[in-house]
Amino acid sequence: MDALRIGIVGLGTVGSGVAHILRDHAERNALRAGKQLIIHRVAVRDINKPRGVDLPQSMLTEDPLSITTDPDIDVVVELMGGVDLASKVVRSALANRKHVVTANKALICQYGPELFQLARENDRTICFEAAVAGGCPIIAAIGQAMAGNQITSLQAIINGTSNFILTQMFHQNVSYDDAVREAQEIGYAEADPAMDVEGTDAAQKLGILTQLAFGTSVTPDHFPVQGINTLALDDLKYADELGYAIKLLATAKLVEGRLELHTQPTLIRHQRPIAQVDGPYNMIELTGDAVGKAWFSAMGAGQMATASAVVADIIDLAIGRAQLTFQKLDLWGGHPPVSLQPAEEIERRYYFRFTVEDRPHVIADIADVLGRNEISLASIIQKEAPETDELAAGAYPIVPLMFMTHRTREGLIRKAAEELKNLSCVTTPWVCLPVAD
Amino acid sequence: MDALRIGIVGLGTVGSGVAHILRDHAERNALRAGKQLIIHRVAVRDINKPRGVDLPQSMLTEDPLSITTDPDIDVVVELMGGVDLASKVVRSALANRKHVVTANKALICQYGPELFQLARENDRTICFEAAVAGGCPIIAAIGQAMAGNQITSLQAIINGTSNFILTQMFHQNVSYDDAVREAQEIGYAEADPAMDVEGTDAAQKLGILTQLAFGTSVTPDHFPVQGINTLALDDLKYADELGYAIKLLATAKLVEGRLELHTQPTLIRHQRPIAQVDGPYNMIELTGDAVGKAWFSAMGAGQMATASAVVADIIDLAIGRAQLTFQKLDLWGGHPPVSLQPAEEIERRYYFRFTVEDRPHVIADIADVLGRNEISLASIIQKEAPETDELAAGAYPIVPLMFMTHRTREGLIRKAAEELKNLSCVTTPWVCLPVAD
Repeated sequence: MDALRIGIVGLGTVGSGVAHILRDHAERNALRAGKQLIIHRVAVRDINKPRGVDLPQSMLTEDPLSITTDPDIDVVVELMGGVDLASKVVRSALANRKHVVTANKALICQYGPELFQLARENDRTICFEAAVAGGCPIIAAIGQAMAGNQITSLQAIINGTSNFILTQMFHQNVSYDDAVREAQEIGYAEADPAMDVEGTDAAQKLGILTQLAFGTSVTPDHFPVQGINTLALDDLKYADELGYAIKLLATAKLVEGRLELHTQPTLIRHQRPIAQVDGPYNMIELTGDAVGKAWFSAMGAGQMATASAVVADIIDLAIGRAQLTFQKLDLWGGHPPVSLQPAEEIERRYYFRFTVEDRPHVIADIADVLGRNEISLASIIQKEAPETDELAAGAYPIVPLMFMTHRTREGLIRKAAEELKNLSCVTTPWVCLPVAD
Repeated sequence: MDALRIGIVGLGTVGSGVAHILRDHAERNALRAGKQLIIHRVAVRDINKPRGVDLPQSMLTEDPLSITTDPDIDVVVELMGGVDLASKVVRSALANRKHVVTANKALICQYGPELFQLARENDRTICFEAAVAGGCPIIAAIGQAMAGNQITSLQAIINGTSNFILTQMFHQNVSYDDAVREAQEIGYAEADPAMDVEGTDAAQKLGILTQLAFGTSVTPDHFPVQGINTLALDDLKYADELGYAIKLLATAKLVEGRLELHTQPTLIRHQRPIAQVDGPYNMIELTGDAVGKAWFSAMGAGQMATASAVVADIIDLAIGRAQLTFQKLDLWGGHPPVSLQPAEEIERRYYFRFTVEDRPHVIADIADVLGRNEISLASIIQKEAPETDELAAGAYPIVPLMFMTHRTREGLIRKAAEELKNLSCVTTPWVCLPVAD
């Protein structure tokens, strides 16, 4: 039987998972791939560090470029993460005529077009199913299953860490900080959780999906990106009362021929499937002009879900399917690429929460600012102050005040926000979150 | 640019949808397929009947075999339904070295292995993504995305008509008969709804998925199949009170190396995603040994969702990907195929509803039968009789009585059922439904 020889660069969580599947199920994999899938060499950062998978010492190296230049290797699996060294490794692999499988969304988002070009010049293929949404085969779904459709809308929970943190906050009634700490203890969040909780990771993945579905090359600096790191438990509770969950939602949708694009904590009606996704799971809701709505959900990260996607890509390469898909990939999406809608023109509903002094004319002052900016209010909730509060003379109780607006433009919201800063009755910071259509 | 010439057999709902996508989006399709996708000829039952898609009369024929033998045609798209003539058409197409795309689950379930063999002998490919779960790419998911996994469990709502009927019953508070009538008016149910409501359609689809995921060839006569046609609105309501939805659930799962297989109305806990699928939608929950749980959901039938799947298959053939997949298909699943668990040994929880006379010793009589058959009760609900009932002298009010059992074997349930028939206190028919794990 033929063999496909694999070099793995990076033997962390996902790399160990891939090594496990390849070694523990060699016969099954060979049956499905039509070839033996053989781990030939593995590059690690520290050759002497103990690791969770038992590989012969002779298979290991600390020099990733000794893998990318090894004439016996057919496929380089890049699982080291980061962008600088990873891009050097991938470039070297392609230049040495290896196929590449990667789970590195930052790399694909930042250098995708360039690396794809290099791959084409060398008649080699880059597979990156594992780079977006872990166990959800969303790259294949857009590229193959939905090939008879123009995707018109894509709404996605694609950062499992953020979704886990929001779920813990809401269901365990804990603060953002406590939920982050728990996510770190379990291993869902990094020691520095910035990439996840500031929305960058989700925005990078949205960039990749946007390229595939709409042919438009974007990076997170092209569109509004906001993370969950400023969310308060109170907002999750108030949104729930109003009939919504708050999720870190990545959205790309066609609006009158232009592309509305953003990654933000967003209110989503409880009834929608995407509002019901809890814990470290991802979900992508696609709308196609033929198929209508379709949903894909699975673990968004984690060792074995991501490893499963990596191994599927390796099998696709062994069969030759991935090469055919990659040849067609430059043709994907809009033709010509769809241009972005300016952020100011994005139109939707918004949720506001103010923390205000409970005294006359407060609602009037706020409503006046919103009204002068053509922002129409759909509903208002003001909570009563607790009866037991003891106040200093002349002081007012502090109470929460929530507004839901009718549809309005982001530009008007930003203008109103500037004016709201000047209101003395509002104790900062106040909260403004979009509502999903 | 190269062209792929397509013959369509059957221009009903789905056929018209396919023709629409191929003609309305010719440029987009060509871009994605790398070839022009051209409708060459179309076989219809009555050439003079008006139809929803505008095709030149010269393109139409009433003789499907004139399509399968046409030397200019590359791909035959079989959308006529039924089994006898359809299998003749597909055989002729393969013998004449055409690839075949079909949405015909009955055909694939009944003649799959034989037709696949014929296709291989002629070096041609059969694509059938549209045969299971309409817009959900579940065939591709099992065959490609999950290729690094052994599927260990598959639970699916794969009959949109039944799911629509159950949803209407519950949410509109209407009887089974009324909901069927509404489904027929909307076009979700056939004039004769038997295939859908008796569970056959879902069981055929389960047979196809079982072949792919476990390598085991089964038809619906190999495993328990029960439809929704005997379900009462009351059971949907009582199940809801107990914390469950009732769905027509198709299940295949590995239990100690054997395959548990059934298609039955089943109680599913409200919290599970598959319990929340309403209307004509389908959902498949897969569990893989690496990926964990993954969910796929979309419209289960309907013109454009199914047409979308057919066109994806055509594009896959144009690219050459489908041919590679098909070559590997005979290798799929368990190796060797997994054998079935006898129905008597299936172990799970059960829900019973009895309609009983409200008099002493009724619960004792029923509980005695269950207890003697080693069936342990987890909970009991007896509803009070309405106060206003006027009864004849010596008569008792009739009340509903529900039991939830602990885990037990289907064989014991069947034995108890025989004995329950002899109890005078139970007015027939009583209801027994399984509970999903």
